[in-house]
Amino acid sequence: MNFSDTFLHSDRLLPAESHILKTARELFDGVENLPIISPHGHTLPHWFADNQPMGDAADLFLTPDHYVLRMLFSHGVSYEDLGVPRRNGAKVASGKAAWRILADHYHRFLGTPSRLWIDHSMRWAFGIEAPLAPHNADEYFDLITNQLQQDDCRPLALLDKADVEYIATTEFALDPLTHHAQLKQNGLSSRITTTYRPDDITDPDHADFQDNIRTVGELTNQDIGSWDGMIEAHRIRRSFFRQHGASATDHGVPTARTADLSDAAKQDLLTRILSGDARPDDSELFRAQMLTEMAGLSCEDGMVMQIHAGSRRNTDPHLMNGFGANLGADIPTPVDPVNGLEPLLQRYGNAENFRVLFFCLDETVYARELAPLAGYWPALRLGPPWWFHDSPRGITRYLDGMVETAGFHNLAGFNDDTRALLSIPARHDVWRRCVCSFLAHMVAGRTLGKLDAADIARWLCYDAAKDAYQIS
Amino acid sequence: MNFSDTFLHSDRLLPAESHILKTARELFDGVENLPIISPHGHTLPHWFADNQPMGDAADLFLTPDHYVLRMLFSHGVSYEDLGVPRRNGAKVASGKAAWRILADHYHRFLGTPSRLWIDHSMRWAFGIEAPLAPHNADEYFDLITNQLQQDDCRPLALLDKADVEYIATTEFALDPLTHHAQLKQNGLSSRITTTYRPDDITDPDHADFQDNIRTVGELTNQDIGSWDGMIEAHRIRRSFFRQHGASATDHGVPTARTADLSDAAKQDLLTRILSGDARPDDSELFRAQMLTEMAGLSCEDGMVMQIHAGSRRNTDPHLMNGFGANLGADIPTPVDPVNGLEPLLQRYGNAENFRVLFFCLDETVYARELAPLAGYWPALRLGPPWWFHDSPRGITRYLDGMVETAGFHNLAGFNDDTRALLSIPARHDVWRRCVCSFLAHMVAGRTLGKLDAADIARWLCYDAAKDAYQIS
Amino acid sequence: MNFSDTFLHSDRLLPAESHILKTARELFDGVENLPIISPHGHTLPHWFADNQPMGDAADLFLTPDHYVLRMLFSHGVSYEDLGVPRRNGAKVASGKAAWRILADHYHRFLGTPSRLWIDHSMRWAFGIEAPLAPHNADEYFDLITNQLQQDDCRPLALLDKADVEYIATTEFALDPLTHHAQLKQNGLSSRITTTYRPDDITDPDHADFQDNIRTVGELTNQDIGSWDGMIEAHRIRRSFFRQHGASATDHGVPTARTADLSDAAKQDLLTRILSGDARPDDSELFRAQMLTEMAGLSCEDGMVMQIHAGSRRNTDPHLMNGFGANLGADIPTPVDPVNGLEPLLQRYGNAENFRVLFFCLDETVYARELAPLAGYWPALRLGPPWWFHDSPRGITRYLDGMVETAGFHNLAGFNDDTRALLSIPARHDVWRRCVCSFLAHMVAGRTLGKLDAADIARWLCYDAAKDAYQIS
Repeated sequence: MNFSDTFLHSDRLLPAESHILKTARELFDGVENLPIISPHGHTLPHWFADNQPMGDAADLFLTPDHYVLRMLFSHGVSYEDLGVPRRNGAKVASGKAAWRILADHYHRFLGTPSRLWIDHSMRWAFGIEAPLAPHNADEYFDLITNQLQQDDCRPLALLDKADVEYIATTEFALDPLTHHAQLKQNGLSSRITTTYRPDDITDPDHADFQDNIRTVGELTNQDIGSWDGMIEAHRIRRSFFRQHGASATDHGVPTARTADLSDAAKQDLLTRILSGDARPDDSELFRAQMLTEMAGLSCEDGMVMQIHAGSRRNTDPHLMNGFGANLGADIPTPVDPVNGLEPLLQRYGNAENFRVLFFCLDETVYARELAPLAGYWPALRLGPPWWFHDSPRGITRYLDGMVETAGFHNLAGFNDDTRALLSIPARHDVWRRCVCSFLAHMVAGRTLGKLDAADIARWLCYDAAKDAYQIS
Repeated sequence: MNFSDTFLHSDRLLPAESHILKTARELFDGVENLPIISPHGHTLPHWFADNQPMGDAADLFLTPDHYVLRMLFSHGVSYEDLGVPRRNGAKVASGKAAWRILADHYHRFLGTPSRLWIDHSMRWAFGIEAPLAPHNADEYFDLITNQLQQDDCRPLALLDKADVEYIATTEFALDPLTHHAQLKQNGLSSRITTTYRPDDITDPDHADFQDNIRTVGELTNQDIGSWDGMIEAHRIRRSFFRQHGASATDHGVPTARTADLSDAAKQDLLTRILSGDARPDDSELFRAQMLTEMAGLSCEDGMVMQIHAGSRRNTDPHLMNGFGANLGADIPTPVDPVNGLEPLLQRYGNAENFRVLFFCLDETVYARELAPLAGYWPALRLGPPWWFHDSPRGITRYLDGMVETAGFHNLAGFNDDTRALLSIPARHDVWRRCVCSFLAHMVAGRTLGKLDAADIARWLCYDAAKDAYQIS
Repeated sequence: MNFSDTFLHSDRLLPAESHILKTARELFDGVENLPIISPHGHTLPHWFADNQPMGDAADLFLTPDHYVLRMLFSHGVSYEDLGVPRRNGAKVASGKAAWRILADHYHRFLGTPSRLWIDHSMRWAFGIEAPLAPHNADEYFDLITNQLQQDDCRPLALLDKADVEYIATTEFALDPLTHHAQLKQNGLSSRITTTYRPDDITDPDHADFQDNIRTVGELTNQDIGSWDGMIEAHRIRRSFFRQHGASATDHGVPTARTADLSDAAKQDLLTRILSGDARPDDSELFRAQMLTEMAGLSCEDGMVMQIHAGSRRNTDPHLMNGFGANLGADIPTPVDPVNGLEPLLQRYGNAENFRVLFFCLDETVYARELAPLAGYWPALRLGPPWWFHDSPRGITRYLDGMVETAGFHNLAGFNDDTRALLSIPARHDVWRRCVCSFLAHMVAGRTLGKLDAADIARWLCYDAAKDAYQIS
């Protein structure tokens, strides 16, 4: 049999050589059951505020997972046939029909983290013990869909089952935080919190930017035509988010560029942008300056700043027009942290209590730029491998490139950055296994003692995230 | 002895650890003797059409192999002394004298794939059981040169011996395909075919571009001064190539840039180029637009499109002036597939039955750009590691960077891309061993079952190439 | 205990798998005790000329080591508290107080080469058998400080103890070489020599450039306002350096750019720069042209040229203003060797007896550009991994990326490039272990015989450096 001996084998992702495996198992025993800290992700707050059942198997595993959709699309399956809603409302396939397609193509995912995550999720939540395949597609669909109606599969029960100690969602600056207010009323706001992600009012290329910036002015009673008023509006919204539990901000930007303009230049820039008279580089310059402004506000209010740089969004207009954003056509690009972050770091890199976490999709800067930067600037820590690199090989390349120059203590631990609730324990499991495997190889190479390795394993799997995000 | 235990050891390139080795051997047993699919390469069609003996040992192993020439040159040996013909006809060293130099320097190739390929070729074709060295140089030269006169060393016999099921050569757009016509007459055209490589009429920087474009106009009776006429000329030549068995096109370009200009802009561009009134960027822009045009014609006629991007050609004018092109002074450069391919993919990336295979020499884009692109666009598959990266470590880095995001089924399998006939089985052998080694490590890490691994091994070593090139 | 089994274990950095370990040990036995060739570094010549005791433990291990300072700074420790002298003379912490901080933070260095080097140095020079920690900080400080006063810890005794056969320091073009003159008088100049590093008169961005260029004109009695005079001044200084034993030059440049301008353009460039009328790109262009000029002078006088490209200097103005340069805020950047070196290589890459060694901090160019360049151009050899990449994983990535295309014989062996005297044997030890580990894996993979591996180990650990730097 080709599954029985490998389907979620207890030693998966651990080293093959027996005495290194022994060490890795010991290390993994020490971290496997630690609570989960999930300080960055994209689960939906209403799941936890309302705690309602989550739909059917396709709603859970297929339509919200852009990793899965894109791979199936690359093999000629249409988004319609995968049941992804069309923007024009035209009919698309049923969940069950889409699920059968996933089953037919499940071998396409061999070697990918998607398969590890789905296998893990299906066993962990539904007790499934063999991989999805055409012959069991309907059976699994019904089994999962039925179980999802049970109380022990509601969102809060799943958080408990996964031992999630802390989880943050992400909301845009204009979000009313209704669900988080509900969570606060329910006494859950120290466990489930939000993150301030003001891309909707910091990115002039955002489709609704002009409306949004006007709205935030009204909401905060500020003159957003003046630079100071616009910054004050952020200050007020950040405070509002903190009242709902937020301790961090997040900034999704196409490049790592930051800027540190004079007051006059900032005002001129804002005026050009709001008047529709922007120059070709103005959007990029505005985003760049806003990163530095957000750093300045973090120095004031203590919110941990996250920068996610280097994704080119919506590269297929056919998909964007037919179905919308975040469905698989975003592609990584190179980033330039040394030049890009220099204005921000020269201004705030030595500031007391400032903390910035940097994420990117360009592995070439790990050893060349990010590890050297984090090994110098007090404010900077390195976010875990992001997106396509949140995978066994990606994690290994990350540690290989970062550790020698940054050490382990300039790393921010792990976060899952997922929209798929069930993949949270699966992703942390992969990280923990890969960390233990990496450390076990160091022990075997006699460059790390076992007790030190156990300390570092715990740091990378639990403490580092709390420390990086200043979670008490 | 330092050879006897390692010269082409049966476990070479397989994992060292005994139980992973066992798995790798099992996988390799399943693929070692599969027929060879060689859908991209630079062997000469007259070899197969005429089927004459191939010269002496230096003609076979030294003068046509730019990997070997360049390495010897880097150690101070001149091209004259290696017997490479001078453009001015001045006398150069004899084959035997050159061969002795290769033998003297053969230790320079330790650790390189060239040595693996030559060792393999010498044993496979000539029964040689120890590496070339000064003390056996003359003996080997005579042995090889004599055997080359035998019938069982003629080109078609070697194809049979290597179990080559399918091989494609590459011809420029103006090529009369005389040898392929002969092959067709001989009933060999379904096994030995050509590839349409129109760089001679798509690259304005080509030395003879103006003459070539005029010639293709005459040949096809088209007005190549009009954009539509020029495209029609391609359409006609592609049809001519297909009549001789071609199922693919190939495009060697310095960058990955594509373009999608308006009809008017295309005509203006062509007019400027033909009138000698080109702007600095026009050559690059013409090549960029022509890639998109070729994609459009592939949508019409079903030919699989190959793009080989990122080689800087003829970087040593001394070599170019003295000896000519393709002798070792071409150097890889970075490529930018995300931005470069966007116009082409946005236009044809979702087109039915369109297939484009992308090759480059910049490994930094494997995980960052190519795997994400291929894991989305239906039209795109990833060519195997090219040129300097067609090597054990290069193959391993390729699989490491590609598989997690693209999966195995967006890969185009292997092709040898060689001018050296005897290196065909050698190169496929290296690929097959490295694939099995990679998969055996996955089995050992419990992320792949053995049966799945065996399926993927066969896919990567045989089926993927047939599927990618739509070879029936 | 977590140290006793790992503190400088005799098998550290060697492979874990027993039969590969056996091979690695055999290879390491053959190179462990070879004399040290240290042809590039930044030890101070007065240490050897005066041969006085070297201060206290912090003077030795902390304040001169920018790797250590930067890491501590990244964890919130100030340079004042580390005892680094302020430019304004304000009081800073004592050596002993600073040392305690290092001890408190010593776990931050787990996984970094700094820890390997310090552990090695402390045992090698002072017999210390357990890692630095808070509980032993004072004891170690006193022990080291006391031993440093003994004759067997004076600089020349340490060179003897480390079996340093050859060591080069680095001096700027205006340096009077007083200490090297003393070393010559002491009969030591063939063992301890200098290197011509004319950045002070080739980099217009150097703070004292205008003064320096005037001074070199006076010193050599040349009109440095004329290009030929300026070059003649270099010729004279190079000769002066050679009289003091120098056989190499070194050039620290932000990029790999070279140029090959006409005589008129060169003169115009110099005139603009000296008149303070420089254009934005002139500094870069001047450095680029001067690299080519230095190559030309190397063709004349036989000095081996070294190019160290790609460090962005002094990226934290706060540090620069408060404490000065070379303290940890220099950051690597990408380099572009293919385009950058082309003018120099096209002019001198085939010149007889010219030798240029290239170093950079951008690992992405190893396999893509540097190995292909070195595998072609006779003049070019590849410097060892530099700076942050002079580490176990950095060394492994270097060999992985370089060897298949460049072979082993286009590599320049190892140099330690250190300011920290005691780290010289430590760094060579790490290189030798990593080389043997790499080669043992090749032997295990049956692609290299043991005798060949032993030859290559010796080449990489000893002969290659002598050959690259033409040390007799």
